[in-house]
Amino acid sequence: MRLTNYFLPLLKEAPKDADIISHQLMLRAGMIKQSSSGIYTWLPMGLAVLKKIEKIIRDEQTKAGALEMLMPTIQTADIWKKSGRYEDYGKEMLRIVDRHDREMLYGPTNEEHITDLVSTFIKSYKNIPKIFFHIQWKFRDEIRPRFGVMRCREFLMKDAYSFDLSEDSGKHSYNKMFVSYLRIFKKMELNAIPMKAESGPIGGNMSHEFIILAETGESKVFIDKKLLELEAPDDDINYNDDLTEIVKTWTTPFAVTEDMYNKDKFYNNVLLEDRIEEKGIEVGHVFFFGDKYNKPMGASIQNKDGKVIPLQSGSYGIGVSRLVAAIIEAHHDDKGIVWPKSVSPFDISLINLKPSNEDVNKICDEIYESLEKKRYQIIYDDTDSSIGEKFSRMDLIGIPIQIIVGPNSIKEGKVEIKDRKTDARKLVNLSEILNEFQLKD
Amino acid sequence: MRLTNYFLPLLKEAPKDADIISHQLMLRAGMIKQSSSGIYTWLPMGLAVLKKIEKIIRDEQTKAGALEMLMPTIQTADIWKKSGRYEDYGKEMLRIVDRHDREMLYGPTNEEHITDLVSTFIKSYKNIPKIFFHIQWKFRDEIRPRFGVMRCREFLMKDAYSFDLSEDSGKHSYNKMFVSYLRIFKKMELNAIPMKAESGPIGGNMSHEFIILAETGESKVFIDKKLLELEAPDDDINYNDDLTEIVKTWTTPFAVTEDMYNKDKFYNNVLLEDRIEEKGIEVGHVFFFGDKYNKPMGASIQNKDGKVIPLQSGSYGIGVSRLVAAIIEAHHDDKGIVWPKSVSPFDISLINLKPSNEDVNKICDEIYESLEKKRYQIIYDDTDSSIGEKFSRMDLIGIPIQIIVGPNSIKEGKVEIKDRKTDARKLVNLSEILNEFQLKD
Repeated sequence: MRLTNYFLPLLKEAPKDADIISHQLMLRAGMIKQSSSGIYTWLPMGLAVLKKIEKIIRDEQTKAGALEMLMPTIQTADIWKKSGRYEDYGKEMLRIVDRHDREMLYGPTNEEHITDLVSTFIKSYKNIPKIFFHIQWKFRDEIRPRFGVMRCREFLMKDAYSFDLSEDSGKHSYNKMFVSYLRIFKKMELNAIPMKAESGPIGGNMSHEFIILAETGESKVFIDKKLLELEAPDDDINYNDDLTEIVKTWTTPFAVTEDMYNKDKFYNNVLLEDRIEEKGIEVGHVFFFGDKYNKPMGASIQNKDGKVIPLQSGSYGIGVSRLVAAIIEAHHDDKGIVWPKSVSPFDISLINLKPSNEDVNKICDEIYESLEKKRYQIIYDDTDSSIGEKFSRMDLIGIPIQIIVGPNSIKEGKVEIKDRKTDARKLVNLSEILNEFQLKD
Repeated sequence: MRLTNYFLPLLKEAPKDADIISHQLMLRAGMIKQSSSGIYTWLPMGLAVLKKIEKIIRDEQTKAGALEMLMPTIQTADIWKKSGRYEDYGKEMLRIVDRHDREMLYGPTNEEHITDLVSTFIKSYKNIPKIFFHIQWKFRDEIRPRFGVMRCREFLMKDAYSFDLSEDSGKHSYNKMFVSYLRIFKKMELNAIPMKAESGPIGGNMSHEFIILAETGESKVFIDKKLLELEAPDDDINYNDDLTEIVKTWTTPFAVTEDMYNKDKFYNNVLLEDRIEEKGIEVGHVFFFGDKYNKPMGASIQNKDGKVIPLQSGSYGIGVSRLVAAIIEAHHDDKGIVWPKSVSPFDISLINLKPSNEDVNKICDEIYESLEKKRYQIIYDDTDSSIGEKFSRMDLIGIPIQIIVGPNSIKEGKVEIKDRKTDARKLVNLSEILNEFQLKD
């Protein structure tokens, strides 16, 4: 993509009400624009990141055996009355009356909706177990939206729901999602720590939040340093294997949020040098709630013995749009964003230092076209901005690799490659520049 | 995907209130489930088709130079008051009041929203021309939703918006979208005919609907047969070239909808044998409306001479979710759906006629794994259903190619390949089956 054709409305200064670094950087880098309170437009570069995150989640959830479907944003109030949560949800639920005076709402979550669907279609134990997921916009009418897309009203969420015949089988589904989450966050280069959590309005007796450590987090967390050294399961994970041991490894070391904190326990269980007290950002939450929704909503099936029993379920959420901000909180420096490769809006930035020079143009065009053929996504700064502006812009938007082409270096038959994160630079011979980049998958 | 792991809740009979064939087939094939009046859940196979269509549109709009972004579903009423359309829109607009008593709405279209955004960011003629598009859920509170996803309330739409400095340049943007639409519908194997149309609530003085011919269409159309023989521009189209001639070729032959029909004109302009009167389904609509929204909403820029002038704009919509139904209307037979390859939820269906036979299983597993490695998406019927049920199920869901493996054919060292559309069958040697399918891109 040539920058002259792109739409990248950078801001020199972030607005004063942008309190946290991710919000400031997303505005400065032209990723989002506020549309109204707590509601955002995703500009081209912001959307590109959102799509990368979505794809990682989709691929990993699919690998774990979950089936993708898509439920609508607008739900009927009827199913919420059936589950008993219609009144409970309070003012955070955006309630709507349609032209026929029917009570509707903008879905804040989908337990009722999926349970209603499953109770219609799944009648036999042969169709069980199943895990469904969807990636859909949700709305929660926060009283005071803040921190940009971190705590907004309209947000993109991945939510999955499992349906099993027994509690044991249900816990295996829970473990599948737990392990899938470890892998998802790892792929985004996030240290997400699972922590025992209160179940809150979702309900149930087993629940873990996945929290990344960040100074700007909203809640305090207390963890054992050992957790930061654990490795997420790698690509040859088999989700049909017993996953209990993996989950145990990740849930045994001390890790709790403020609301479950007990100082004595922390001090007794964790050595002084391993105690970490920091702030955290919740990026995922898994719940196991058994038959809480299945029972009132009639999601029951006949088991092998002919007995009709309610299904056993859990739900599993990831804040997709929030992750864009969370990743920036974890990956930035004083010059701007430093994207992990897996979610970067472009693979490479190509900087033409002197577009008025024909030789420089020719070389840039060649590099641009050749690397696009190798399937790299490239943002090519072909503008007539000053050199300083070009450098600071590319540092701000944080593409991992910069290729810098100017009249001086090409005179020596070389171009520069810079690593945005480490600032490591090397001069590469023009004839070898393309060999630096293998064909992308 | 093994069918035993998939979720494909087929119906033996379509509900009585499903009036048109696409609605019947989508329900019978387990693609959608009604959630409430005019609101649908997309089950895994329905979503797979929706995503394929989305990708074709995304790729082609990008090729035409449009930039993808994403506007939210919920908009503030303020911008609609500014444009003057807040009252005009009537009861089809889903109006919402949030917890702070602010007037909001679920976007039925986005002219106001994008114009507001452009007026904030685009201040110089250097940033012009631009075409933006997004693919987002819309809501129109139809008084009587019907025909499944064809006329529903919550629907997925691709809408693009162009911003130019002059009317001439604006018309070039219009032509780009016009040509892009010809290519998009062609890729879905749809004969979509552009027809001069009324601009309605969007406004403006130039507008074309893209309509496909189908017995079940809602509006009558009158066209010159020549239009059915025209070819959409191919892959080497250059969108920077003058596209006037292409648009002229497609807009010169007679083609109008009922509301613009004049019998004398039809009879005078079209020879008897070329006159086609049929029903049609609108799948796209392009508008050019100049400064209609830019003027009241202040989307103006300084031109080279320092004069501040309002931008010139058009908007360009495609009904993404409606297209799923429209394609079925155009591609089905008495056995079920016959998907065009480009939008089929799977590339290949693999039918194991006897899963209790080890040899058959082994061969099926080999074919399944090898073709997945070659990047084909396969639905593998590994169930213990009867042979008749297996055949009718695969015919119903309409995957273009069927590979049929049974004990008799493998005794002779062969498997059968069937073309769903033509019913052409061939026996292929086991040793050669994999050579029939090249590595997919």
